[in-house]
Amino acid sequence: MGMVGGGRGSFIGDVHRKAAALDGMIELVCGAFSSTDARSVASGLELFLPENRCYGNFEEMILKEKSLPPGERMDFVAIVTPNNKHYEQAKMSLTNGFHVVCDKPMTLTIDEAQELEQLVASSGLLFALTHNYPGSPMVKQARAMVKNGELGKIRKVQVQYLQGWLATPIEKTGQKQALWRVDPSQSGPGGALGDIGTHAENLLEYITGSKINELAADLSRFGEGRLLDDDGNILFRMENGAKGSLSFSQIAVGEENNLAIRVYGEKGSLEWQQENPNQLITRWIDKPKLIFTPNGQQLYPEVLAASRIPAGHPEGYLEAFATVYKNFALHWMAIENGEHMEKPDYPGVKDGVRGIKFIQAAVLSNEKNAAWVKV
Amino acid sequence: MGMVGGGRGSFIGDVHRKAAALDGMIELVCGAFSSTDARSVASGLELFLPENRCYGNFEEMILKEKSLPPGERMDFVAIVTPNNKHYEQAKMSLTNGFHVVCDKPMTLTIDEAQELEQLVASSGLLFALTHNYPGSPMVKQARAMVKNGELGKIRKVQVQYLQGWLATPIEKTGQKQALWRVDPSQSGPGGALGDIGTHAENLLEYITGSKINELAADLSRFGEGRLLDDDGNILFRMENGAKGSLSFSQIAVGEENNLAIRVYGEKGSLEWQQENPNQLITRWIDKPKLIFTPNGQQLYPEVLAASRIPAGHPEGYLEAFATVYKNFALHWMAIENGEHMEKPDYPGVKDGVRGIKFIQAAVLSNEKNAAWVKV
Amino acid sequence: MGMVGGGRGSFIGDVHRKAAALDGMIELVCGAFSSTDARSVASGLELFLPENRCYGNFEEMILKEKSLPPGERMDFVAIVTPNNKHYEQAKMSLTNGFHVVCDKPMTLTIDEAQELEQLVASSGLLFALTHNYPGSPMVKQARAMVKNGELGKIRKVQVQYLQGWLATPIEKTGQKQALWRVDPSQSGPGGALGDIGTHAENLLEYITGSKINELAADLSRFGEGRLLDDDGNILFRMENGAKGSLSFSQIAVGEENNLAIRVYGEKGSLEWQQENPNQLITRWIDKPKLIFTPNGQQLYPEVLAASRIPAGHPEGYLEAFATVYKNFALHWMAIENGEHMEKPDYPGVKDGVRGIKFIQAAVLSNEKNAAWVKV
Amino acid sequence: MGMVGGGRGSFIGDVHRKAAALDGMIELVCGAFSSTDARSVASGLELFLPENRCYGNFEEMILKEKSLPPGERMDFVAIVTPNNKHYEQAKMSLTNGFHVVCDKPMTLTIDEAQELEQLVASSGLLFALTHNYPGSPMVKQARAMVKNGELGKIRKVQVQYLQGWLATPIEKTGQKQALWRVDPSQSGPGGALGDIGTHAENLLEYITGSKINELAADLSRFGEGRLLDDDGNILFRMENGAKGSLSFSQIAVGEENNLAIRVYGEKGSLEWQQENPNQLITRWIDKPKLIFTPNGQQLYPEVLAASRIPAGHPEGYLEAFATVYKNFALHWMAIENGEHMEKPDYPGVKDGVRGIKFIQAAVLSNEKNAAWVKV
Repeated sequence: MGMVGGGRGSFIGDVHRKAAALDGMIELVCGAFSSTDARSVASGLELFLPENRCYGNFEEMILKEKSLPPGERMDFVAIVTPNNKHYEQAKMSLTNGFHVVCDKPMTLTIDEAQELEQLVASSGLLFALTHNYPGSPMVKQARAMVKNGELGKIRKVQVQYLQGWLATPIEKTGQKQALWRVDPSQSGPGGALGDIGTHAENLLEYITGSKINELAADLSRFGEGRLLDDDGNILFRMENGAKGSLSFSQIAVGEENNLAIRVYGEKGSLEWQQENPNQLITRWIDKPKLIFTPNGQQLYPEVLAASRIPAGHPEGYLEAFATVYKNFALHWMAIENGEHMEKPDYPGVKDGVRGIKFIQAAVLSNEKNAAWVKV
Repeated sequence: MGMVGGGRGSFIGDVHRKAAALDGMIELVCGAFSSTDARSVASGLELFLPENRCYGNFEEMILKEKSLPPGERMDFVAIVTPNNKHYEQAKMSLTNGFHVVCDKPMTLTIDEAQELEQLVASSGLLFALTHNYPGSPMVKQARAMVKNGELGKIRKVQVQYLQGWLATPIEKTGQKQALWRVDPSQSGPGGALGDIGTHAENLLEYITGSKINELAADLSRFGEGRLLDDDGNILFRMENGAKGSLSFSQIAVGEENNLAIRVYGEKGSLEWQQENPNQLITRWIDKPKLIFTPNGQQLYPEVLAASRIPAGHPEGYLEAFATVYKNFALHWMAIENGEHMEKPDYPGVKDGVRGIKFIQAAVLSNEKNAAWVKV
Repeated sequence: MGMVGGGRGSFIGDVHRKAAALDGMIELVCGAFSSTDARSVASGLELFLPENRCYGNFEEMILKEKSLPPGERMDFVAIVTPNNKHYEQAKMSLTNGFHVVCDKPMTLTIDEAQELEQLVASSGLLFALTHNYPGSPMVKQARAMVKNGELGKIRKVQVQYLQGWLATPIEKTGQKQALWRVDPSQSGPGGALGDIGTHAENLLEYITGSKINELAADLSRFGEGRLLDDDGNILFRMENGAKGSLSFSQIAVGEENNLAIRVYGEKGSLEWQQENPNQLITRWIDKPKLIFTPNGQQLYPEVLAASRIPAGHPEGYLEAFATVYKNFALHWMAIENGEHMEKPDYPGVKDGVRGIKFIQAAVLSNEKNAAWVKV
Repeated sequence: MGMVGGGRGSFIGDVHRKAAALDGMIELVCGAFSSTDARSVASGLELFLPENRCYGNFEEMILKEKSLPPGERMDFVAIVTPNNKHYEQAKMSLTNGFHVVCDKPMTLTIDEAQELEQLVASSGLLFALTHNYPGSPMVKQARAMVKNGELGKIRKVQVQYLQGWLATPIEKTGQKQALWRVDPSQSGPGGALGDIGTHAENLLEYITGSKINELAADLSRFGEGRLLDDDGNILFRMENGAKGSLSFSQIAVGEENNLAIRVYGEKGSLEWQQENPNQLITRWIDKPKLIFTPNGQQLYPEVLAASRIPAGHPEGYLEAFATVYKNFALHWMAIENGEHMEKPDYPGVKDGVRGIKFIQAAVLSNEKNAAWVKV
């Protein structure tokens, strides 16, 4: 694995490295961690990389690595830069024959997203988008229960993703994580919408196996001087006939990382909360509340496969993230070995396209005072 | 207290009686529990009433009781009939000099609601609307914290009221509670909207001390053949500048009585869940999560006054209901004693008018495909 | 109902009155609330009693009430005085033909307890001991599940009752509730042991349907200058072969009223927490965690009978207390009507004897440095 | 890092590898994973090791690795074999100049434990014992709060470690994890006592900073034909004057990995539950319940250092385990670099000695019918 972005002080770069390392299947071999040689090398040395594999910019990394013999060069690129870099970096990786793991949202525009989609299709290369929450065992159990009809036809979905860390304009203090997120040129048209709203969208479509058909979005900018939304409430209607609401915020004071979803069917319902990820609460029309746990009783096989340790030993954010990497790595190793393998369960380029369409529809709806817009 | 409605098998009539009895301040002395003499008497005898105070219809009760000497006759009427009876019964009570405790929603139309409002004003009689949730100590703490600025300016509110008991069309089995709730002629224009949506609206306006300015409502009828909504999702904007979403349902399978609210201000936020009413979760921009409990530490005086027993001894639905009755009774006893007393903290006729306006706005918005409508 | 004790400022007297009033089956008609005429009358008037039924002492109440015609006089006595008064007051009530509801612990000594037991047997009068926790629906569900073998043979029990209100020596400030509890002459040989330890013992024997055979107790007196225990840890072995531990405390800072029990059988286990009484958590050898709720799915009939309102509407401490009164009242009304009725499910004089034996065994074991003592 | 034990199907070997890999500081370079060459090689190849670093037995690994040049050979040994192998393997590692990370309990006897203690002292080599729970950020916060006097003098401690996986005699089915744990020759004198009771002992001594002085233990063998305890209840008294109880079980049906502790001081108390490790509940004599979260508000610096990701992103069992490895690795790297460093916060050989003393005292007390025994 080679990494672009993720130098000193980066949050998500460190997450990617730990997630990739956890299962002992992936090794970081090079990186273009920062925009200057010196800083990139400094970051790389801290990560125990040899200096000659620490590149001063992305183009250099791609070209130099490409020139190495197959067994030595990196096998894929992990893109952990701000949103506005994803498109060009993914494109260059793919056109030079490298598989890609890319952070979300995938691009700034639909055109870019669809171009990447075509590039992945035509190149036969792999592309993983790191929506990490579908990596969680209880999310997989939720999806399997819906898919197998346990809940009956889905009627109602409520999803929220609430954070409070942008409640005050900390970007004015120079806080690095905040700075690029509130800047339309780096983040694209969605603020919190793109950063976490897309996670909520992805989670609800992943679990229900259906898509948002149309939405009505009321976005807000509470932080003084902000150009991008930092909060929003959305009504939606789904292809399967379900209706629901989606709420997201980065100004919800005191909330840490409160992603939660409830799905109601004709026979049963389920609830999952990211901050307490090791349980799936289910409710039933004719029996008491049942609570599933990872590696616990009566789980689907694909759920058991997504746990690393026995029941009662909590796995969390990094493990879910690692499961995305693990399934991607299994896919890639199969291909390297010339084996055929159906794409395992990790988010891909199509999820990336969905996310951009969601952002675009929400922004448009909001401009029309929350009128309904097709996604 | 005299009661209209609430005969055998009634849910809410029994709740009113227990709530009124709890604090030993109110005595049930008569009732028109059912629409026939025989059934009304049968119900009354089970309640240890003398036969001559069990009336066959409401008009008879009002007139006979009025003819009794002051010390003997009932002091107020508790109206626990279906929604379509509230207006006429409240009106007749007031015009004959009886105070009123009335179930919600108050009337079927705005005109009726406003007429009652004027009647209360002109008669000088008391009127309590049994929105019971504001009777809960932790709800009072929430209101006090907002009022005293602890949370700062309010930005975001999420409220939900989820039940699942109408997930299947049990009205077709003749289930009594379901039958009138799905019948527009008895319930009015709102189904679940009127039955529980109004509780959500009342709770959020009570806690925030502000009002919903405009709303966009997407209502659903999932139960086969239903004429009234049984589910809905609403966006709203408030007078204080806050925005939010309100979700309600009676088809949310497995949900029992899940009323919950989150209020986010600039400095802090709070969360209350009716099914676990003895805690108020608060979150802060600069300190860890703080959890308040009834009769616990650092509560406002009005909150302490709303608890009956020491911290850790759970009080629930009936106790909150009883607090509405208790505060109403204190008001009425003060008036009987010729004392002046500011209206204590119980929901009144103005809350009733708000509820009807809310229903009307939501129904209208829904007809316009969730366009914004002023409340 | 006539009451002895429970004047102004009493905690438990007020609880008894509210619990007795809740279901509309019991009326307070007289009382000897305090040890002087004037204070007793003052308390009684606040409770809307006529002055001539407010007695200055207990003997007077018994004798005067006995002289009234059957339809007018009180039917039973509720004893809510400190522990050292229970024996004489219960004895006098029984020997004068009054049924008794008595607070726990029942007496100071085994001899007194057994004398009351005989008196109840020989008089044919009813005796209820207000261990309120068995009145809770989920406790009844727990008992029924054990009784019906759902958990298999019981192996392990853990029970705790933790409070913190005596963490500092508030008795030195004159706090009324504390004063008599730390005084051996009023409380008997057990401090926290008698006050709350007996609740834990009663709860575990009620749910398991088995008895503590022997115990080893390590009691503590953390409060400066205390003569009675304010904390303790106990090992026990039960008749059914189960083993376990019991912990109680009134110096567990920050704990409000944390009574909780876990029972483990060969096939399943259960957990109940008094501070969150509206759920029963069950765990199974071959299925996920199942959570029962009052008036929810798959409950035993006797559990449904112990709830007053639909699922999701929390009932708490007062309601459980009221269920003890209600079942006692049903028993007494049946007897008044000359009907035969098996003793309904409320704690009786035998539970009182068990409690005193438990206290005595624990005190003795502690004196022997936690050696095993038969109960 | 070289590993002994932890071949295919091992639970704890896999945990050690993932924990060691997480932070990118430690690389697995060799192993003696199984007792035969073939199986050891097979396990090693799956872990991407070169065949010549997969050894058929431990002695061979030590000697061959020792003969490699410093930069190539392993730096330390991770011992993840059954308990009866720890002593000899640790001893051989130390006497051949390798640092050691060893699973718990450290040895079978006190003599062995103390010999290792001396060997560590005399060799100057590092020794980490993988009690993983002290690696959890909220456990570190708990320890810091006690140490800094926030809770005042400690009075009471309750700790439990409950599992249910040995509720039936699965060792008879050949289940590998069960087989050695119920075998005294491999596990030593303690069954569940040694396997999980020692974790409870370690956790309570870590958090309180005090030691168990004496204990009274009532151990049980519920599983048919078992030679070692599978359940136990223990009273204890601590050096700091606190008293408490410790309960552990592997037959508590339905419990997964329920390690939990409550510590009560004169001013405050705290509660931590391993299954929900990302919160620390604190209760206070004069303020509401306060809940701390990793990377949340008002934490001690050493707690912040133990988190990898922002607040609200759950870390779990593997992360806590990894923190033990990380702190060990920091220590070892400092030493390699010739820097002086105080031993960072990871469990060491002294913790190992404590654990063996605890097991021995509990077994002895149990033989004497739960008489008090000094630890």
